[in-house]
Amino acid sequence: MIFIDACFKKPTPTAPIWLMRQAGRYLSEYRATRAKAKNFIDFCRRSDLAAEATLQPIDILDADAAIMFSDILVVPLEMGIQVEFVEKTGPVLPSPIRTESDIDRLADDSADRLEYVYETLKITRRALAADKALIGFAGSPWTLATYMIEGGGSKNYAIAKKMAYSNPDLLHKLLRKLSVAIGDYLLRQIDAGADAVQIFDSWGGALEKSAFFEFDWRYTTQIADRVKSERPNTPVIIFGKGAGGYLEAIDGAFEVFGADWNTPMERAKSALFDRYALQGNMEPARLYDKKAIEIGARELARIMGKENGYIFNLGHGMQPDFSLDNVKFLIDFVRQIFAR
Amino acid sequence: MIFIDACFKKPTPTAPIWLMRQAGRYLSEYRATRAKAKNFIDFCRRSDLAAEATLQPIDILDADAAIMFSDILVVPLEMGIQVEFVEKTGPVLPSPIRTESDIDRLADDSADRLEYVYETLKITRRALAADKALIGFAGSPWTLATYMIEGGGSKNYAIAKKMAYSNPDLLHKLLRKLSVAIGDYLLRQIDAGADAVQIFDSWGGALEKSAFFEFDWRYTTQIADRVKSERPNTPVIIFGKGAGGYLEAIDGAFEVFGADWNTPMERAKSALFDRYALQGNMEPARLYDKKAIEIGARELARIMGKENGYIFNLGHGMQPDFSLDNVKFLIDFVRQIFAR
Repeated sequence: MIFIDACFKKPTPTAPIWLMRQAGRYLSEYRATRAKAKNFIDFCRRSDLAAEATLQPIDILDADAAIMFSDILVVPLEMGIQVEFVEKTGPVLPSPIRTESDIDRLADDSADRLEYVYETLKITRRALAADKALIGFAGSPWTLATYMIEGGGSKNYAIAKKMAYSNPDLLHKLLRKLSVAIGDYLLRQIDAGADAVQIFDSWGGALEKSAFFEFDWRYTTQIADRVKSERPNTPVIIFGKGAGGYLEAIDGAFEVFGADWNTPMERAKSALFDRYALQGNMEPARLYDKKAIEIGARELARIMGKENGYIFNLGHGMQPDFSLDNVKFLIDFVRQIFAR
Repeated sequence: MIFIDACFKKPTPTAPIWLMRQAGRYLSEYRATRAKAKNFIDFCRRSDLAAEATLQPIDILDADAAIMFSDILVVPLEMGIQVEFVEKTGPVLPSPIRTESDIDRLADDSADRLEYVYETLKITRRALAADKALIGFAGSPWTLATYMIEGGGSKNYAIAKKMAYSNPDLLHKLLRKLSVAIGDYLLRQIDAGADAVQIFDSWGGALEKSAFFEFDWRYTTQIADRVKSERPNTPVIIFGKGAGGYLEAIDGAFEVFGADWNTPMERAKSALFDRYALQGNMEPARLYDKKAIEIGARELARIMGKENGYIFNLGHGMQPDFSLDNVKFLIDFVRQIFAR
């Protein structure tokens, strides 16, 4: 699998490519599969449908890796927190975590209750060609904690940050509990067929540097350490959204740093490439225009084109209004300009 | 005025301090003044009330600078764009800019129509003590353009970015028109009594590096250049929210770079302090806790405490739920630890 080789910085004939949220609304096939489920949570729980969505970008785009179709919030959900996905608004958690007893009530066995995710992975891995990698994933502890504390997405994370600065022990307690749950979950994903796992640290950038390392990175890398010590052959990718200002202090046992589009790839290369493979980071909005795609991809080829240990991806997820024609154009163009 | 001296990197007895959005809802006096206006736009247009709000943080907090009470969206408003301020949701612009004729219809004389802002400045400057500076401000062209194109705040700036990548000429046309209007506006503010002007580049961080310099920084610094060439004795501050990853390429004729809380001050210092004074950047959420305030302020004192050309501020605006007691504690503490 060229994707796994690139994670371990082994030589590959070209840069592997996959796209964050490649299983998504921009595909009519995804929308058809989605329509078979009662709601978004039902979609995540219906392993047959989730596997179908996972495989679509491989069949349609010939991406080098499939990322399991699911959502990072299935972990809080199976810890016993109510999660509702509201069309266009995003997730709503009507009973947020605010007290120690809220944390104590969270179930310890969420990894056991996520059997439907492992089933998705098993079905997908069986159907997937041998040269295509299957990526499992989870949200980072801080990322999940923000949703659980704020009760949904947030503009300025005021409630979670207030906890961080005025009651850090309480936040640490939640983060510890989440770290165990996420670690259990990723190990079970690997056992079910995931060839690599990605931790989405989506909201680390909401924290100033000292708080980032205290409340986010420390737990994210604890999980990575645990996965590495128990499953050393499975690459761990950390997608560090908003961590671009903190690159010089990034450390820990994982293979691939996923850079967001806000992080100049040259900076990521000079700060991290001696220790990590790199993934990313074309600005997704370039997909609105073929000329913009060419310029963005060429720029990444200029910086990373000759390097082993580079995985082409976007710097954030795909948008529902992207045109499939442009997405296919991107993939063909990347294969062409990154060929060695 | 120690604030102006610090902008020009002259020695000051302590670091001057003011706080972004210091005239705001966390003050009961502000809420009382606000209640006298029919709505938020009326509040901005009522120079007597706006001056009252501007002066409150000086009377109550003894800040070293007053920033005129207004909103960056008065410029689009006076260019003829409908702007509504919806409680809790934020601004809504129901007729967004999408076509060339939308841009052609924008009024060229917005700076003339903003007389009420100049009146606010005149009233305030007359009432303000001689050692306190008065700061005028405007949004950067790209920042205003995002509101005008998206029709309000935005999560991912998809419509504005789509224009940037697929119809850059159209976006440049809008940005040029905004740059003239903003430049006119800032010069008139200075004539009306502003001792310094700050350009809020609030959404530059929504752009990847190459797009940041093409669509944002270039226009922001054009305005700064114009102000510097016509009013060389008035310091220009640029608040670069989200520009932390691009610091090394920052250039242009202005005095002070305002760092957001996401930008480690040590990085800002090493990248910019040889050329610019620095302002910022305590994480606002530290205001939820006195211990957190102490740690945050001490860390800034460690990095900037001995330097001329440093202005203490937050890395973003004040929140409505901050306690006045903690805000006063911050100001006293900063005066104490930054005293030379």
